Amino acid sequence: MIRPTDDQKRYELSSPTLLPKASGFLWNEKMMIHMNCRGYAVAQFMQPEPAKYSHAPNLEAKTFMQPEQPYYAHHPGRFVYVKDEENGAVFSAPYEPVRVQPEQYLFSVGKHDIRWEVQHQGLRVVTTLSLPKEDALELWRVKVKNMSQEQRKISLYPYFTIGYMSWMNQSGEYREELQAIVASSVTPYQKYQDYDKIKHFSDKTFLLAEHKPDAWEVNQEAFEGEGGIMMPSAIQAETLAGGEARYETPAAVLQYRLELAPGEEREFRFVFGPAHDEAEVAEIRRKYYSGKNNQGEDGFVQAEREYADYISEGKGTIEIQTPDADLDNFVNHWLPRQLYYHGITNRLTTDPQTRNYLQDNMGMSYIKPETARAAFLTALSQQEASGAMPDGIILHKDAELKYINQVPHTDHCVWLPICLSTYLDETGDYTILDEQVPFGDSSEAVTVLEHIHRAMQWLIKDRDERGLNFINQGDWCDPMNMVGYKGKGVSGWLTIATAYAFLVWSDICEHSGHPDAAKQYRLAADETNAIVNEYLWDGDWYARGITDDGVVFGISTDKEGRIFINPQGWALLSGAADDIKQQKLMRAVEEQLETPYGVEKLAPSYTSMREDVGRVTQKHPGSAENGAVYNHAAAFYIYGLYAVGEQDNAYRLLRKMLPGPDREDILRRGQLPVFIPNYYRGAYRQFPKTAGRSSHLFNTGTVPWVYRCLVDGLFGVQGTKEGLRIQPQLPSDWQEATVKRTFRGAGLHIEMKREAGVTATEVYVNGNLAVDGVAKDLQPGAEYQVLVKLPQ
Amino acid sequence: MIRPTDDQKRYELSSPTLLPKASGFLWNEKMMIHMNCRGYAVAQFMQPEPAKYSHAPNLEAKTFMQPEQPYYAHHPGRFVYVKDEENGAVFSAPYEPVRVQPEQYLFSVGKHDIRWEVQHQGLRVVTTLSLPKEDALELWRVKVKNMSQEQRKISLYPYFTIGYMSWMNQSGEYREELQAIVASSVTPYQKYQDYDKIKHFSDKTFLLAEHKPDAWEVNQEAFEGEGGIMMPSAIQAETLAGGEARYETPAAVLQYRLELAPGEEREFRFVFGPAHDEAEVAEIRRKYYSGKNNQGEDGFVQAEREYADYISEGKGTIEIQTPDADLDNFVNHWLPRQLYYHGITNRLTTDPQTRNYLQDNMGMSYIKPETARAAFLTALSQQEASGAMPDGIILHKDAELKYINQVPHTDHCVWLPICLSTYLDETGDYTILDEQVPFGDSSEAVTVLEHIHRAMQWLIKDRDERGLNFINQGDWCDPMNMVGYKGKGVSGWLTIATAYAFLVWSDICEHSGHPDAAKQYRLAADETNAIVNEYLWDGDWYARGITDDGVVFGISTDKEGRIFINPQGWALLSGAADDIKQQKLMRAVEEQLETPYGVEKLAPSYTSMREDVGRVTQKHPGSAENGAVYNHAAAFYIYGLYAVGEQDNAYRLLRKMLPGPDREDILRRGQLPVFIPNYYRGAYRQFPKTAGRSSHLFNTGTVPWVYRCLVDGLFGVQGTKEGLRIQPQLPSDWQEATVKRTFRGAGLHIEMKREAGVTATEVYVNGNLAVDGVAKDLQPGAEYQVLVKLPQ
Repeated sequence: MIRPTDDQKRYELSSPTLLPKASGFLWNEKMMIHMNCRGYAVAQFMQPEPAKYSHAPNLEAKTFMQPEQPYYAHHPGRFVYVKDEENGAVFSAPYEPVRVQPEQYLFSVGKHDIRWEVQHQGLRVVTTLSLPKEDALELWRVKVKNMSQEQRKISLYPYFTIGYMSWMNQSGEYREELQAIVASSVTPYQKYQDYDKIKHFSDKTFLLAEHKPDAWEVNQEAFEGEGGIMMPSAIQAETLAGGEARYETPAAVLQYRLELAPGEEREFRFVFGPAHDEAEVAEIRRKYYSGKNNQGEDGFVQAEREYADYISEGKGTIEIQTPDADLDNFVNHWLPRQLYYHGITNRLTTDPQTRNYLQDNMGMSYIKPETARAAFLTALSQQEASGAMPDGIILHKDAELKYINQVPHTDHCVWLPICLSTYLDETGDYTILDEQVPFGDSSEAVTVLEHIHRAMQWLIKDRDERGLNFINQGDWCDPMNMVGYKGKGVSGWLTIATAYAFLVWSDICEHSGHPDAAKQYRLAADETNAIVNEYLWDGDWYARGITDDGVVFGISTDKEGRIFINPQGWALLSGAADDIKQQKLMRAVEEQLETPYGVEKLAPSYTSMREDVGRVTQKHPGSAENGAVYNHAAAFYIYGLYAVGEQDNAYRLLRKMLPGPDREDILRRGQLPVFIPNYYRGAYRQFPKTAGRSSHLFNTGTVPWVYRCLVDGLFGVQGTKEGLRIQPQLPSDWQEATVKRTFRGAGLHIEMKREAGVTATEVYVNGNLAVDGVAKDLQPGAEYQVLVKLPQ
Repeated sequence: MIRPTDDQKRYELSSPTLLPKASGFLWNEKMMIHMNCRGYAVAQFMQPEPAKYSHAPNLEAKTFMQPEQPYYAHHPGRFVYVKDEENGAVFSAPYEPVRVQPEQYLFSVGKHDIRWEVQHQGLRVVTTLSLPKEDALELWRVKVKNMSQEQRKISLYPYFTIGYMSWMNQSGEYREELQAIVASSVTPYQKYQDYDKIKHFSDKTFLLAEHKPDAWEVNQEAFEGEGGIMMPSAIQAETLAGGEARYETPAAVLQYRLELAPGEEREFRFVFGPAHDEAEVAEIRRKYYSGKNNQGEDGFVQAEREYADYISEGKGTIEIQTPDADLDNFVNHWLPRQLYYHGITNRLTTDPQTRNYLQDNMGMSYIKPETARAAFLTALSQQEASGAMPDGIILHKDAELKYINQVPHTDHCVWLPICLSTYLDETGDYTILDEQVPFGDSSEAVTVLEHIHRAMQWLIKDRDERGLNFINQGDWCDPMNMVGYKGKGVSGWLTIATAYAFLVWSDICEHSGHPDAAKQYRLAADETNAIVNEYLWDGDWYARGITDDGVVFGISTDKEGRIFINPQGWALLSGAADDIKQQKLMRAVEEQLETPYGVEKLAPSYTSMREDVGRVTQKHPGSAENGAVYNHAAAFYIYGLYAVGEQDNAYRLLRKMLPGPDREDILRRGQLPVFIPNYYRGAYRQFPKTAGRSSHLFNTGTVPWVYRCLVDGLFGVQGTKEGLRIQPQLPSDWQEATVKRTFRGAGLHIEMKREAGVTATEVYVNGNLAVDGVAKDLQPGAEYQVLVKLPQ
């Protein structure tokens, strides 16, 4: 059903109806495309804000990406109709819109391409999508092969939806000289001031054919007729009518009339995407369909290869071999790819949330640390001189804070030391602390060290008389927007997170030669932890916060929202929880929050509005923040478990982030294990029917934390100032594991083995016992053999 | 094919594929619904802004109503699937989504209901929609009758789409105690400040069944399965599975399993709409399905009757009988209904554009003059003390100026005297001029007379050194937004319209005992006309304006946008054009703007951006303002033609506003002649294929002007201060016509006849010759016989 291929890279699915929402995604510098296994597509490109070139059939709201995207008959997609000219039989590849179950079907997601292999009635249709590295374009190959013993006469109709482009102006026609369908539109606007922006937009959508088609249709209504999209009337005719769209919905449909001898195969290539004008389309034609280089590659082949190279740059720093082959495949290939995606694209927004931007670049520290470094400096250059961080980081001159970034949150400062620490662990580059950076509201430049001091001081200042941190209209949890909007409510989680941030910052100060500051922040952490225990400990776990009216919530007397995961996970990190509290809270999490699909964010999910908590309580039970298995929060908790040495507990939960090996589990989640989604549906105890479903969204702060769980926790190969500390926390039933670690230019081949008689971990680097398990003086370019002996 | 029924009220269509976009619309105090002949629906209700309860399958943009709305497979709709339980055959009424062409089909649009009669394979399904007068609810009757000679076993599945309600929270379930499907959602919001609004919203959608269904399904995906909406998998099973929707797309599907003897008929009634909570649904159940009154009517029947009564209040002031039966039906029944709709609903917006609001109430002067009176006072109470009128009139305390009302236009003042004059003609109520009304920016109250003086003075002041009126970012034509945004460009049309406004205001001053003011404004009109002729006459017609850079446009040397209709029509009204100019401009209009579907707004349509004119030049050629047959402007022109005695010319163009009697013409326009759309597609000479198509939008300022063309022009039964001036301008090939005119409470039965020997119109009221053709001293309640003799 679903299997990784021999090369351990692709994920494959053998039926279009088994996981109807299974998908893969590709991205490049300017766009991303999410392809569903049945042929539906969600694609966006940046100009500079996210825009579309293949639209819904109606005027869509411009909004952030939606979870659990419902598909419907006319959802945007990329399809190929195949008609047998002898008997009139029609099917479509990959599956939509005709929905004939093919005799053979394979949906195959690679790291740099997505492929469908469909065989039906003696015809094999192989469709492949790749992207160029820099252009916002789709590169398509459609191969058709006669697998039968007879000569076959068929028509092949690639159908690329264009949809409802604009109420101001939309049209489309076939341009002979370009061998392309070109649809034109004007992005709707009403104020003349906006004209200066929209006039530069790429408001055209084109489908560029390498081979001259025998016929075409550009008018969706004329194409579909009464047959509808499932069985378009136009393909009943011998040839498409060659229509155009004039303020009508355009579609890009081509027809190739083919005679295929037994075994004969034909290939067609297409480029599909947005363009500013026809000159640009002509230039794209020239670039992709001609101009062979000295390896004999034309632009199309070259672009495919360059894209594969580009994606392969997104390698992580560990390559593992463990008793868990599925984990190996995911960690070696797919998890770094998802990290890389976040680090490169910033989630295709021009104003990423500050906490997302910092965490995404925490992940990028493992892949391209120079990118992460620049990002930290960018973020700090938008900090206020008061120490406060803005709600979003502006990445383009025309960008502005949108959506949730217009709502004031109080947590952004805590991410600074936390995310920076990973960069420092990985690179040892403490020079970043001395960089001079201005403020967003003042050109006075101070060091990064001073910037973060101010952020920490801001956190100390933004507290109530008890020493608990104000929540204002939200912390990490966006929709918890009515806890403190009157200016009194506090966040339990944020207070705990602040203690952890102080600890981390204290360590950084220590290692960068500022022992006094280190001491001061360690003291601040201790004081904060004491306050946390005084006001937030509920007897078996920590409360989530205290409202404007002084009501403590997230506690045992609440009927809904009794327990939240975040205060528990972070209390393991901050040191607030002593051994007894640790045991208690872990039991509470297991009993109340753990499900077969992971740990829920809160439970029981709210089923109705609680006006002293906020919007989160209006969200659908089990969805997004309201009780979902929100993997980001789950990853914090797992990281906390590793921090207190709970390796089996941690591994069990870590493993639940990926669909498990059993079929039912995969079906329930509804996605291939190509990426970790931001959530699986929760409310497991309240609505078991829908629990476990994937959101199908791959934008998530989860991934760098999972990587940290692996690097700092499970495999214990975390960087320190002096070297690499090796301290694995393998699950107790693993006897061995191998990790290939790249670290500051050095390569370490680390064998981990349980051995009888070993009482504490022993690390041997090139045969020599390493003191405290730290491999020091590693030379860039050098290779090291490391043996780790673990107790049984 | 299409025929008005015997009672001359309904319009009917006998095939679902002939005019696939044909539709009817119903409205009440809180909502409107636009039902397409195939079963698709566009419905909105006010809370206070327009909202939906039956959504698209994706997140739709919140915007104004779109012209030429494209439909698609999953477009919102109201359908009934019918399954023959013996052989499994399925069809759907009215036609979508199964698309089986029924043996008999009738789509029938009445004034207070919409009905489908579908007969297929021995089953007759009659579906009827009506509305209550005040509740935002749909009232549905579904009747099924066995027309065959055998006993039949069938399942009937009413399917009401609910769609993608919200990304925050959406669910649905069958509630046994209510006998209803109830879908719940929370309108998405991000700022806590918005919570106070949305918490009062009617965010539930319900389908309330009178008869207990045998089964149901609330989960769209489960219902459709792999069969899709065209042939849902769930209806292949014996009974629907009774599913629910949990953060899934809800649908309202019921199943009735029926055994019908030959000739047996069963009826089912449903209420569908939005509700705030379940208590409200329970209350609606009680109200509509019980509580018989003393005529034995339950709430449902009573609501249907009250709605019919309510709509019948929207009668016009003339009832005609002419040689043109199609015109008679339209003018007697449908045109006043469309006037009434505008006057009652204000186009379902809380901030109607000022010019729309004034003109819609100009139309209301014929139906409910007290409503019009109140509206004029409301509008003036939002005038600035400077005389300037705002771009929109706020009708609800929470309303704000939206969309195009945020862009400054300069024409709003001209509509004040023009629209008021119709009210005065119709009622003779000059007391309105003495009403004391405050300003929007000052509580100082002055008379309406003074308000309008100030408006006229504002127009005199807002001019350049030549005396031409500034256009700023638009006049009547919204998207002509770059002609004068730098502060210099002027509007030719507006200058001419100002002259006409002065004339009209001068007459009102004259009749209200202010002869000095009358003289002053007549002089101002003359001066303005002289300026118009000096700067805007291009040799054969009037220019549209002069840009910020001093470029005159809408003239013979322009390649696109050479001639605009508005300056021509208004020059006939203002008196700017002398006889020779009149003849020249009429010839130019006929040659360059007239098409088989009416007069275009401008020609040739712009095909690319002209940065010194604006957005209009980016609109699709032939669409909306860019060269459409924009009926509003066409009606101005026709009114101008009547003003200069061009009755044949006027009638020919008037008649083109309705699909003509020939089949090709009706097919081209694609709508039943139930309403005048805001435009038919233009650019006839450039894109003949699409020219003539209806926008399918019934919101338009056209209708009061058409009514004025009939009252003041064609039938010449316009009110004056003293009485009714009778001065018909029948087309020369009409020998006679009868008009029943209600006027200030009196009834006049007017027979118009051409007679040999008559050289000038002679009017006899109850046998007595009326001086100047004016019937005076008409008594409320009295009936008059009027004979009008016309020259041959």
